[in-house]
Amino acid sequence: MRIPIKDDKFTFGIWTVGWQGVDPFGDATRSGLDPWEYATKLAELGAYGITFHDNDVFPFDASETERDEFVGKLKDAVDDAGICIPMVTTNTFSHPIFKDGGLTNNDRSIRRFGLKKILRNVDLAASLGAETFVMWGGREGAEYDSSKDLNAAYERYKEGLDAVAGYIKEQGYNLRIGLEPKPNEPRGDIFLPTIGHALALIAELDNGDIVGLNPETGHEQMANLNFNHGIAQALNAGKLFHIDLNGQSGVKYDQDKCFGHGDLAAAFFTVDLLENGFPGGGPRYEGPRHFDFKPTRTEGMEGVWESAAANMEMYLMFAEKAKAFREDPRTKELMEAASVPELAVPTMSPGESYADLLSSEEIDPDVVASREYHYVELYHNAMRHLVG
Amino acid sequence: MRIPIKDDKFTFGIWTVGWQGVDPFGDATRSGLDPWEYATKLAELGAYGITFHDNDVFPFDASETERDEFVGKLKDAVDDAGICIPMVTTNTFSHPIFKDGGLTNNDRSIRRFGLKKILRNVDLAASLGAETFVMWGGREGAEYDSSKDLNAAYERYKEGLDAVAGYIKEQGYNLRIGLEPKPNEPRGDIFLPTIGHALALIAELDNGDIVGLNPETGHEQMANLNFNHGIAQALNAGKLFHIDLNGQSGVKYDQDKCFGHGDLAAAFFTVDLLENGFPGGGPRYEGPRHFDFKPTRTEGMEGVWESAAANMEMYLMFAEKAKAFREDPRTKELMEAASVPELAVPTMSPGESYADLLSSEEIDPDVVASREYHYVELYHNAMRHLVG
Amino acid sequence: MRIPIKDDKFTFGIWTVGWQGVDPFGDATRSGLDPWEYATKLAELGAYGITFHDNDVFPFDASETERDEFVGKLKDAVDDAGICIPMVTTNTFSHPIFKDGGLTNNDRSIRRFGLKKILRNVDLAASLGAETFVMWGGREGAEYDSSKDLNAAYERYKEGLDAVAGYIKEQGYNLRIGLEPKPNEPRGDIFLPTIGHALALIAELDNGDIVGLNPETGHEQMANLNFNHGIAQALNAGKLFHIDLNGQSGVKYDQDKCFGHGDLAAAFFTVDLLENGFPGGGPRYEGPRHFDFKPTRTEGMEGVWESAAANMEMYLMFAEKAKAFREDPRTKELMEAASVPELAVPTMSPGESYADLLSSEEIDPDVVASREYHYVELYHNAMRHLVG
Amino acid sequence: MRIPIKDDKFTFGIWTVGWQGVDPFGDATRSGLDPWEYATKLAELGAYGITFHDNDVFPFDASETERDEFVGKLKDAVDDAGICIPMVTTNTFSHPIFKDGGLTNNDRSIRRFGLKKILRNVDLAASLGAETFVMWGGREGAEYDSSKDLNAAYERYKEGLDAVAGYIKEQGYNLRIGLEPKPNEPRGDIFLPTIGHALALIAELDNGDIVGLNPETGHEQMANLNFNHGIAQALNAGKLFHIDLNGQSGVKYDQDKCFGHGDLAAAFFTVDLLENGFPGGGPRYEGPRHFDFKPTRTEGMEGVWESAAANMEMYLMFAEKAKAFREDPRTKELMEAASVPELAVPTMSPGESYADLLSSEEIDPDVVASREYHYVELYHNAMRHLVG
Repeated sequence: MRIPIKDDKFTFGIWTVGWQGVDPFGDATRSGLDPWEYATKLAELGAYGITFHDNDVFPFDASETERDEFVGKLKDAVDDAGICIPMVTTNTFSHPIFKDGGLTNNDRSIRRFGLKKILRNVDLAASLGAETFVMWGGREGAEYDSSKDLNAAYERYKEGLDAVAGYIKEQGYNLRIGLEPKPNEPRGDIFLPTIGHALALIAELDNGDIVGLNPETGHEQMANLNFNHGIAQALNAGKLFHIDLNGQSGVKYDQDKCFGHGDLAAAFFTVDLLENGFPGGGPRYEGPRHFDFKPTRTEGMEGVWESAAANMEMYLMFAEKAKAFREDPRTKELMEAASVPELAVPTMSPGESYADLLSSEEIDPDVVASREYHYVELYHNAMRHLVG
Repeated sequence: MRIPIKDDKFTFGIWTVGWQGVDPFGDATRSGLDPWEYATKLAELGAYGITFHDNDVFPFDASETERDEFVGKLKDAVDDAGICIPMVTTNTFSHPIFKDGGLTNNDRSIRRFGLKKILRNVDLAASLGAETFVMWGGREGAEYDSSKDLNAAYERYKEGLDAVAGYIKEQGYNLRIGLEPKPNEPRGDIFLPTIGHALALIAELDNGDIVGLNPETGHEQMANLNFNHGIAQALNAGKLFHIDLNGQSGVKYDQDKCFGHGDLAAAFFTVDLLENGFPGGGPRYEGPRHFDFKPTRTEGMEGVWESAAANMEMYLMFAEKAKAFREDPRTKELMEAASVPELAVPTMSPGESYADLLSSEEIDPDVVASREYHYVELYHNAMRHLVG
Repeated sequence: MRIPIKDDKFTFGIWTVGWQGVDPFGDATRSGLDPWEYATKLAELGAYGITFHDNDVFPFDASETERDEFVGKLKDAVDDAGICIPMVTTNTFSHPIFKDGGLTNNDRSIRRFGLKKILRNVDLAASLGAETFVMWGGREGAEYDSSKDLNAAYERYKEGLDAVAGYIKEQGYNLRIGLEPKPNEPRGDIFLPTIGHALALIAELDNGDIVGLNPETGHEQMANLNFNHGIAQALNAGKLFHIDLNGQSGVKYDQDKCFGHGDLAAAFFTVDLLENGFPGGGPRYEGPRHFDFKPTRTEGMEGVWESAAANMEMYLMFAEKAKAFREDPRTKELMEAASVPELAVPTMSPGESYADLLSSEEIDPDVVASREYHYVELYHNAMRHLVG
Repeated sequence: MRIPIKDDKFTFGIWTVGWQGVDPFGDATRSGLDPWEYATKLAELGAYGITFHDNDVFPFDASETERDEFVGKLKDAVDDAGICIPMVTTNTFSHPIFKDGGLTNNDRSIRRFGLKKILRNVDLAASLGAETFVMWGGREGAEYDSSKDLNAAYERYKEGLDAVAGYIKEQGYNLRIGLEPKPNEPRGDIFLPTIGHALALIAELDNGDIVGLNPETGHEQMANLNFNHGIAQALNAGKLFHIDLNGQSGVKYDQDKCFGHGDLAAAFFTVDLLENGFPGGGPRYEGPRHFDFKPTRTEGMEGVWESAAANMEMYLMFAEKAKAFREDPRTKELMEAASVPELAVPTMSPGESYADLLSSEEIDPDVVASREYHYVELYHNAMRHLVG
């Protein structure tokens, strides 16, 4: 397997390799490095860029000077390593002030505090040349029906997103927002629990043109949904602005395993879609392949770096297999037998009226019903490429 | 508990009381009645109206004459009983021709067949005075990544929905479409798995103004999502056109238990929302309270009618309790303490600029962070009303 | 609703009210009290006793002197408050040394360290008069197939449990072990994920006579299982030694909500079983009603105490309703109609041989199949009592 | 990939390839063959044997003559094809008489009917040379808390199992019972929902020595559990008597996809365990590799046979990869680094007393805590073999 290169566009959050292993039942199992050290090391492993939350780099209560100093050191490390910072995001979930959320906190003074924190970080993102500003509203939600005026919550969420997008426009920044859906954890139910809910809210925004999605493999799988169906719907809507790749093993707490170390076959088809596009063409994702994983708590620093590398190697192995699968004449044959290409043909003919349609020739349903689709063979052919 | 009356707007699908108990592992446990007999009996129990799929009333291969005869008998029974038919829907899932779906079948001839079946049923719905035309795309989906060009699938879904909505407009019918999301079963993954995904697709339609949702309690819960958050988002988007109430016990096969016989507390808050609206006002649902349940397979015809009645009685019990909960001064006090009303206040002040916001007075995050929300008390007060 | 009294046998873990709100994405939202302060306050609220992990009372690295001092203060507070310490447990999950588990850690030196820590705490439990020693093996498990020799893991688990039980016997302590199953979190898959798996392992122990279960409502529900079926199987096996009551809303991270604030109806039937026993008699649970909940992170200290009280009030409300449900003549009638009492009658007659059985009179299956069970009515009658 | 041979011990249920596609929302999509035709065809594909429920071969209401005739034809086909019938099972779930279960039906007359049906089928199984008699209690369960005296239900379940096992012993048959757990579907909650619950009940039986398990991949995964942990616990308990291999994609209705077409990586590790055993040796499974799958409803008869073959091919591909993974020196190295072999070493030394243990040398927990486990690397090395 070839080693990762910049053109692969692999990026990592600093918080991923920087996670020290605190979980709900246990203390840190690793000590951390300085933010810039992670950047340097990730570059060595072949990363194209790094990403961060504001408070991955400087403390929540940092002074202006500290803030500038820490960001400066990171920027220097990034420049020295020849990588970039294509995405920046804001932490509106760790400090207890956000215990009921930022943009949808019942407390207006906290909403204002949260919004200001986000806007300040938009400035930072723009100043570092980032093109995507991710917003994960992990604390926007509730544990209890009754604790929120839900209509007001959606109104405030829209107000907040429109405010951030409006600010980006006002400032003339070359930034687009990527919303990151998640069904639950740390809240019992998070608003915008899935790709669908986020797309739906975006459609209601005034400044929705620069708001899209940053879906995460594991988050959709926590809602027991098919991640590939989700990103396909986002692509179809022109809204796949960024992507978080990782691994999850079923409906449980957020595991953030390495990409491909969760649902293996689903991960293969994600790469197939990202690398080869839809069978009949259509919208493509061209942005960074961003890994949002956590090196498992049992691992030390050696394991941290091996884990980071594993994400990229899984992706590259999948990419190679997916290419071969798509190019295999047997695949094309089976896709034809499954009428896959026929789905791209409009159901109604050009210019056909309802009257035309309704009076068009009848088929014999019992005859047509007996057709074979060969879906199992087609999938099995993919498995032959993936495993064989 | 008072008995149900027409003004309660309780409606039932004929297929609910008419379900004979065939499941994946067993044969029918009950014989069925004629469709019109169900209508008569439901009216006696206090229903406001009945609803149906075309093939609940006449067979898939019925001739025009049979179709008219069967529909006529149903109409007569409905009229005699003094009830109405506020919703009609089409079966595009039982016949094997639909084994890969209707509107998104890979086979164009089947898509055309499906669309024609739907349009014919739109005519029927309009002729019976229905105001809502529900579309549940239960077979639109896949078991296997690779079996669909997903971009094409969403294109065809949109084409199909726009065609049906366009036809309604062309014919001048007083009908709105209600899409019914479901995450899986009978397909491994169904397109439009949740309220969010359906809202998002509707936002992409040309004729989306008359397309909204018919969410079902159990379907959202099968995706482990909060049904009340879902219908609130639909209401906020002006898209809650119809509703399917029933009961589900967790993430498993579609149980269709009686409303309230699944997640009891969630059902209570559903009724609280439907009857009392959002705490701060806003969009309301005024349509029928439609029960989409299945009398459990262990029950005979006595159990069928007892089950039907149980849905309504649960609803009425919840309504009474919800009213008392909302009117309780302690509730108002706790809502105030939880800042629930404050969520309706815009985060930015009228006319406030970004510069104003950014230069506005800073709060001390550590101080504000320590505030109490009293969410547990507020919820517990609801429980006192519900159970106490 | 009457206030809780000692005879209700309500107990609380110190770690419950003592939880400060650290979660995977956020810092503490509350400061803590001293352990003994919790004991005093819980007693005031009506608790019968308190329980703790060793490191809820003294630090992991406490000296003998510190240990004695802290335990002494707790003991004094307990005595002063007139309550007891019926259960003690050990923390083998927070310190990073346990990142791969205690009794099933791949590293033998850590297994020995863990076992010693447990044995020392057994001494403490006995010295404080506890009757139950709970063992939650939260770190015994794996994220990755391949990281464990699973056969060896079960062997070590059995060795460890037998060692602890053997030590209790050797010392002549009046203590029984209660294993606490959980499917996942903090490990990807925890060994002994459910009540069933724990019962099965116990059956393989040499000293299994003093090893039983401490099942937790939310843990079984995280595996999507029916908690009441689980505790019934444990009771039937004579192994329900202790119980953890709390609330969980579906298959997701461990929520530890107040008892009754999750799946309300299931909680009602738990209390029905605990208070009223099986309909036909049989094994009963007589131990403490132990609440293992976490006051939600949004709550301050007022909310902490309100939450603690809510657990007890929910239990008492359920108990009252369950009593009325059981005593209702309509319930007895419906149980009879459902043949509930008939399930207690052995299927074969006393002394009946296989030959007798096989030659006994045949029933007509189609006739018998048509019988009604009235399960929905019976359940609905429970709901009438619970909600009506 | 080599073709399957008898020595691979691949077996199939007649009901698998024979499934015609009836599901809760749709009619049959395929017509069926005669039972003996399936046997012949499966033999051609390389199967070692076939298995069946009584009513896969003859109707529920078959006369003695019909029964003998149909079984005779099947036996002839099996003999002609040179395959065997290593397992037989009974259908106590399809006929409406079993709508509340067989062995735990509230109605004693039905329990007796069910038991007789099972005993008659035990005779048949023995006469055909089967070694395993599978019992899936799919209808033993409930939708409603309150509908069962749960203690009585477990008593009746034990009585029924002991009766069947006792009959086998009385008749001197060379048969062992394999219980098949499942969490739900077709009942809301099935008794013996997981491997653990079934093992636990077996431990309570009088005749439990000949009662073990027939776990199914998808069934454990429907409870969100790790199938490999489950079968390892069964092996450790000496109770893995038979196995059902298939594919499931998450917590949802029972999908019965081809083995390996669900959770791919988990399936790989299942084969690794079956073929290569535990790393440190221990109990092995030597029985048939039985596929309990359903050819997806979209497939016709071509798809049915392609699907059947796909199960075997997936198994063989995994077997080859698993062998290479285990033999790879890097794997051994990483297992050593992960201390995998050390888990087989007892925690206490031979003859060590508690006093010895408690006074043994202390380790420094902070030092030991910092050790690396290399679990991610080890897993990733497996992935390299599986995919690379």
